[in-house]
Amino acid sequence: MRGVGTHLRGVGTHLVLELWGCSNLDSASVVEQALRDVVDATKVTLLDLHVYPFSPVGVTGVAVVSESHIMIHTWPEHGYAAVDVFTCGEERDLSGAVGAVREHFSPERVQMMHIVRGILVD
Amino acid sequence: MRGVGTHLRGVGTHLVLELWGCSNLDSASVVEQALRDVVDATKVTLLDLHVYPFSPVGVTGVAVVSESHIMIHTWPEHGYAAVDVFTCGEERDLSGAVGAVREHFSPERVQMMHIVRGILVD
Repeated sequence: MRGVGTHLRGVGTHLVLELWGCSNLDSASVVEQALRDVVDATKVTLLDLHVYPFSPVGVTGVAVVSESHIMIHTWPEHGYAAVDVFTCGEERDLSGAVGAVREHFSPERVQMMHIVRGILVD
Repeated sequence: MRGVGTHLRGVGTHLVLELWGCSNLDSASVVEQALRDVVDATKVTLLDLHVYPFSPVGVTGVAVVSESHIMIHTWPEHGYAAVDVFTCGEERDLSGAVGAVREHFSPERVQMMHIVRGILVD
């Protein structure tokens, strides 16, 4: 996944995902596995992983990695999940990250924004 | 802090901050206090807080809150910090959040982007 943004040198790359019409949004174990699969797809180094189920519904999951973080928040009442994949260092397989997320939540619709973080102007 | 974005109804609001020319970027205790002060400024409920110092330099800090998350990553070698303040529910004092971050890192330059997450189209 290359685009104009990736030609600017930045310290990090931040993929903002909006998932609609999702399944499995109230499952802490699915959120955890999605985080682990994004970690694997992007070949980052996992430092810490926590999943927080909310009452009555909803889950937050965070994977802190050496190369920044992966975050998932779900709102089952809206069929919506917000996913952020923030990495630094070498180029990552962001398509693989999106695929991993899609596999677990089966969204009907996905919106994406890619932000280059910390653009270094030489 | 109101703008066009806040007139769209979304499940969350995500403030993306880019801080340049910063001080204290290699201090885990400053990162922790900045997270706590953003939590206070935005009146969110803290669930969990972790700070990860890196070798040789750099710190990641995450505050998981009932209303989503606050994340700080620092790159002292670039004088740069990436800060994300993602909240849901009622309107928050995002100006206060920015002020809390500024106070701890004294950035020479701040760039901001405000993303409405999970826009609900009626």
